[in-house]
Amino acid sequence: MSVNIPRGTQDILPGTVEKWQHIEKIATDICRNYQYKEIRTPIFEHTELFQRNVGDTTDIVQKEMYTFTDRGDRSLTLRPEGTAAVVRSFVENKMFGDPNQPVKLYYNGPMFRYERPQSGRYRQFVQFGVEAIGSEDPAIDAEVLALVMDIYQTAGLQKIELVINSLGDTDSRTAHREALVNHFQPRIGEFCTDCQSRLEKNPLRILDCKKDRDHELMKSAPSILDFLNDYSRTYFEKVQSYLTALEIEFTVDPTLVRGLDYYNHTAFEIMSNAEGFGAITTLCGGGRYNGLVSQMGGPDVPGIGFAFSMERFLAAIEAEGIEWQEENRLDCFVASLGEEAKDYTVKLVHDLRKAGIKAERDYQNRKMKAQFKAADRLKARFVAILGEDELKENKINVKDMETGEQQEVALAELTETLLKKVEAK
Amino acid sequence: MSVNIPRGTQDILPGTVEKWQHIEKIATDICRNYQYKEIRTPIFEHTELFQRNVGDTTDIVQKEMYTFTDRGDRSLTLRPEGTAAVVRSFVENKMFGDPNQPVKLYYNGPMFRYERPQSGRYRQFVQFGVEAIGSEDPAIDAEVLALVMDIYQTAGLQKIELVINSLGDTDSRTAHREALVNHFQPRIGEFCTDCQSRLEKNPLRILDCKKDRDHELMKSAPSILDFLNDYSRTYFEKVQSYLTALEIEFTVDPTLVRGLDYYNHTAFEIMSNAEGFGAITTLCGGGRYNGLVSQMGGPDVPGIGFAFSMERFLAAIEAEGIEWQEENRLDCFVASLGEEAKDYTVKLVHDLRKAGIKAERDYQNRKMKAQFKAADRLKARFVAILGEDELKENKINVKDMETGEQQEVALAELTETLLKKVEAK
Repeated sequence: MSVNIPRGTQDILPGTVEKWQHIEKIATDICRNYQYKEIRTPIFEHTELFQRNVGDTTDIVQKEMYTFTDRGDRSLTLRPEGTAAVVRSFVENKMFGDPNQPVKLYYNGPMFRYERPQSGRYRQFVQFGVEAIGSEDPAIDAEVLALVMDIYQTAGLQKIELVINSLGDTDSRTAHREALVNHFQPRIGEFCTDCQSRLEKNPLRILDCKKDRDHELMKSAPSILDFLNDYSRTYFEKVQSYLTALEIEFTVDPTLVRGLDYYNHTAFEIMSNAEGFGAITTLCGGGRYNGLVSQMGGPDVPGIGFAFSMERFLAAIEAEGIEWQEENRLDCFVASLGEEAKDYTVKLVHDLRKAGIKAERDYQNRKMKAQFKAADRLKARFVAILGEDELKENKINVKDMETGEQQEVALAELTETLLKKVEAK
Repeated sequence: MSVNIPRGTQDILPGTVEKWQHIEKIATDICRNYQYKEIRTPIFEHTELFQRNVGDTTDIVQKEMYTFTDRGDRSLTLRPEGTAAVVRSFVENKMFGDPNQPVKLYYNGPMFRYERPQSGRYRQFVQFGVEAIGSEDPAIDAEVLALVMDIYQTAGLQKIELVINSLGDTDSRTAHREALVNHFQPRIGEFCTDCQSRLEKNPLRILDCKKDRDHELMKSAPSILDFLNDYSRTYFEKVQSYLTALEIEFTVDPTLVRGLDYYNHTAFEIMSNAEGFGAITTLCGGGRYNGLVSQMGGPDVPGIGFAFSMERFLAAIEAEGIEWQEENRLDCFVASLGEEAKDYTVKLVHDLRKAGIKAERDYQNRKMKAQFKAADRLKARFVAILGEDELKENKINVKDMETGEQQEVALAELTETLLKKVEAK
């Protein structure tokens, strides 16, 4: 009897996995070039970590977490996002003491949210993210944005759009918050229950509500940009001027509010505007989180980061019709005739592989014709044919599958001959 | 307030993660060379999958699984091993219909077992594994063994030992099982309660018991090798002859019984015999599982595979004192003096990176001297120095940190000049 894959998850199989490997290589190569280093945190964390730091008014924490109790009675949660764990690790491992500041990190791994599965949305999905912790130089905001745009553009994406906003520092946010409460309070009864509870806890998130987005008070809501103090305004202007210097196009959208509680100053999203991309157009989101490290028990150290979904990255590549050459041809298929010759190819194939030649043989006891078919399917450049007679004479035939040319070589020279032939292709 | 990492898990941080990347690259390169392709399955599966297929008398299923109920009332389990999920995927995605047989797969990812954490044992650990499904040619058993030995040896391990055994086919196992029951039954009361329940369900696993391993009946227990029928014996001999042809050393240990229920024919382990490696010496385990695919609802298709722990692989490398050169030097640190010059370096560093040069700058508003110190820490080959005067003249100074030589170049030519200098190093 068969058991199926859990709802909202997927297997990534050969034929598709090569696309993942391709964009992962682009992303990690660029991260290394920009001097970001990999960090790997556990799949689960203490539930508290997310409750306290992602924000307990968010949908993620209230409705979507995979939370369970382990055999030692701990409440654990499969990580719903990457930043909280990276900052937890930054604090726990005292990375603020590293002389190289800011600490520049990237991660790549599965995240988990119990949401209704739909096209482009999985319960287990993969996020690639970056965190630069320890600097409040607007140049690092620009670097982080340049990095993600570089990744997307290197992968070939052209129909993408960068939208930025500033959420200001604490003073600016407090002033704006007050204005929002005053704006919505008189008519809050017309809003959904989620928004009603947001009014006290985090009125900024009312602007993010999907149910009430057409309410007339939404459009007339006070803009954060009108409440930025001098420091916040200058900071935001500097980020914009750096982006302009780097020739990175962007638009400012004062209604851009990220769904997590810990952001301040720069917030951003990257959207796909490729036709037929689907309803969820956000590819990447991120922002600055200057209070998060100290909130987690570390020193008062600023940070900024982003995360993008690998699934949506691949969907965007597909929507733009970008193709790439996958380089995974077989160099040599070793075909054989007769029991003794077949046995001998075990060693032959092994020797070829040890020399770095991509080699394969038959494991299904196939006839010669079927072995050639197998070689064709694997797009073998060469087929080496070993029969009983050849084996007796310590020889083997090498056929070039492109030209049809055949050459007899000494068994002992097969590796060397093939190395030359493969290199010449 | 700080929340710590869950017990039995670890963060893999810069400085250590490079070692993981290094052995992952070795393992995946060799897998590709041997024509194995990557598969990625979800972190959790329906609990049933493991209960039915890993074996419900095993410690894993009885005591160690992270099992929980999701918000849709499904019983899910964090995967404790890799094979069950890969075979589930093989069946669910009908890979048995692929003309390329056997289907050769590898995976690399976290697994979860609630065990007492100790040196080299984590509750979240990483397994790299390989499965070849669809062939019962002893040559594929030899290939799989050659592959894992190739990975270990390429990483530099020398103090490793391959131990193999045959568990025979169903007939051989039935005969052996009967002999085991007859052997243990009269004195089963002297064994632990686990062994007592194993006697009926799976007497083979009594041989694997850690508590009773010194009982006198253990040494005198009937050997599976005396119960192999002709087919099983010939199969095992063929595997051994191939290993000999490949010059892979091994010993046969008839007491080698793998902890999972689904094995038959070839079973194997690789141990480290490096001094000071610690109590748990097994690096890798695997074997043939000819009944597993049909048990999961697929056709009657044979399979073989192995998995090794990445943590123990790294521990073995450390125990043998193997070092490798990490190549992650910075090409150029761009130092600057004055506000305007500092602003300009944002673009400068970006242009260098776009050209593939590993470049970095200061984000901490450091003085010139401290910027040079930062460059030293990052082992920068070159430092490019931009002051207000240079900027006015569109020039920049490039210092070779090895020779101390300094050269003034036009700002517009910095990228090209550095590309040449870096290449010449």
